[in-house]
Amino acid sequence: MERETIRLDDVVAILERTPASLRTLLDGLPEIWVRATEGHNTWSPYDVVGHLIHGERTDWIPRARHILTGEAGAFKPFDRTAQFSDSRGKSLSELLSTFADLRRDNVGVLVGMKLTGKDLVRRGLHPELGEVTLGELLATWVVHDLDHIAQVARTMAKVYAKSTGPWSAYLSILQDRQR
Amino acid sequence: MERETIRLDDVVAILERTPASLRTLLDGLPEIWVRATEGHNTWSPYDVVGHLIHGERTDWIPRARHILTGEAGAFKPFDRTAQFSDSRGKSLSELLSTFADLRRDNVGVLVGMKLTGKDLVRRGLHPELGEVTLGELLATWVVHDLDHIAQVARTMAKVYAKSTGPWSAYLSILQDRQR
Repeated sequence: MERETIRLDDVVAILERTPASLRTLLDGLPEIWVRATEGHNTWSPYDVVGHLIHGERTDWIPRARHILTGEAGAFKPFDRTAQFSDSRGKSLSELLSTFADLRRDNVGVLVGMKLTGKDLVRRGLHPELGEVTLGELLATWVVHDLDHIAQVARTMAKVYAKSTGPWSAYLSILQDRQR
Repeated sequence: MERETIRLDDVVAILERTPASLRTLLDGLPEIWVRATEGHNTWSPYDVVGHLIHGERTDWIPRARHILTGEAGAFKPFDRTAQFSDSRGKSLSELLSTFADLRRDNVGVLVGMKLTGKDLVRRGLHPELGEVTLGELLATWVVHDLDHIAQVARTMAKVYAKSTGPWSAYLSILQDRQR
């Protein structure tokens, strides 16, 4: 049997605090920060929170269940732009609350699954990537959270890219993901 | 006169919440997350907090004062590795509290300076970069915070780089700053 290297406690430790991390980073900030993007076809912090909400509803737990019930078909594809319609008219605070509620419920479901090492190597079929394991899904959930937290910080940093003057040479984040 | 584009309220909005953002992201997490690095000569989240403390003590406000008092000499160079001796023996919680105390005081000092648009274009001499303005210093302080928040999230994400299996192809943060 393959060895699974992730520990469920480490997974939950990150997943359960992401809503608070995003709230602390973003709630109540001036619009210049929360509506900034990195340019055409990139997302603002506001957009990111909507994307995370959609993941809570349609991606992580539904896919974990798909694997555990042994469904043979591929996962439903994930809609990466659903937030542009779903978030319409909602305030950032409202989105942060919705995300926190959904995440709390989903972490509860995850813990309630009482997954074993054997469960973590069970397989499902990703519509593009092929065979994946439940452990890989959970590790991806964690990395996906952290990726978007980093994106939020990077996007806000770039608002002041020019304002830093000569210091921009030392601020490597200003060069990350520049096209 | 040059136009200065930063607004002090926007600067303070980020600076005053960084300690809470880092505490929410990090405090109480398992060591696997807070002691991770991105490889040789890179910093863990724990190291980053020590670095931010050193900046509060020796960099931002001292340099702002240097500019406002019109000192002709260059700023003192900043020690980018001071945290490796200064943080020794201290817990992460302790460092987070120290950082929060110093930052609260420094934001108070900054607000108390009641800076005008004219102040923001006053100049100082950076030991390597040459002439810089007070506005550029403040913008750099903000971007520097956000850079390190992104670094903390990126460093933790990489702990699970291999655990995500085929999904790593979609998680672009795993490729950022890889050497």
